[in-house]
Amino acid sequence: MRYLHTMVRVTDLEESLDFYCNKLGLREVDRHDHEAGRFTLVFVAAEGQEDCALELTYNWDPEPYGEGRNFGHVAYEVEDIYATCRQLMDAGVTINRPPRDGKMAFIRSPDNISIELLQKGAALAPAEPWHSMDNTGTW
Amino acid sequence: MRYLHTMVRVTDLEESLDFYCNKLGLREVDRHDHEAGRFTLVFVAAEGQEDCALELTYNWDPEPYGEGRNFGHVAYEVEDIYATCRQLMDAGVTINRPPRDGKMAFIRSPDNISIELLQKGAALAPAEPWHSMDNTGTW
Repeated sequence: MRYLHTMVRVTDLEESLDFYCNKLGLREVDRHDHEAGRFTLVFVAAEGQEDCALELTYNWDPEPYGEGRNFGHVAYEVEDIYATCRQLMDAGVTINRPPRDGKMAFIRSPDNISIELLQKGAALAPAEPWHSMDNTGTW
Repeated sequence: MRYLHTMVRVTDLEESLDFYCNKLGLREVDRHDHEAGRFTLVFVAAEGQEDCALELTYNWDPEPYGEGRNFGHVAYEVEDIYATCRQLMDAGVTINRPPRDGKMAFIRSPDNISIELLQKGAALAPAEPWHSMDNTGTW
């Protein structure tokens, strides 16, 4: 067997694509509109990982998407966690758990999907403003 | 950046490992006990996909894990969806959405994580008992 994707539902497809692609840095790799079922599926993935995607399900008829604790988060490794968090923060994304340790950060998608960012390899040396930054909310 | 894992929380680690490994066919690839934080992390993955894991978080102090609609499911491709569903059903797993179309099935983990099973390649020819099997619950 082979892992294919993790599916999350999104309330606003354009806002979600702006978050996952423009801000987080994933790329749209596939899209299907299902007229009969009134939903659109968009697959986004890290470059070179087109087979290991996040599937965004956009139902054309709105419904409330609560969150539960049985699902935790999706995790991505990044080359420079400070640069990634700076880019996200400059784009208006709250860094809920700043990378105080040079290793780990958490953010949330527009639909409150928790996303873990992990520094590739060894933790970076502590650096401001991250080292002194408080948590914001939960993740 | 690179996708690493999807994390889900589990109420009963042994029951979950029985489900994900013995029944579904994933393999334990890593485990960490965190005495200070009172939690255990177990990574399970499909064979040959050790870098694309499902992270099971077991908190030693129980808490209720509700589910939300913002998370949908995790999906795995299988070689023979009828054989996989037969093996799961024989092991006592409910096939919530049977593979009536020879292509797609859904089951639930012990903590109600929805899992999609997709036939590799073209759909199999319709076959009983799957073709006539009703849905059970939601997924």
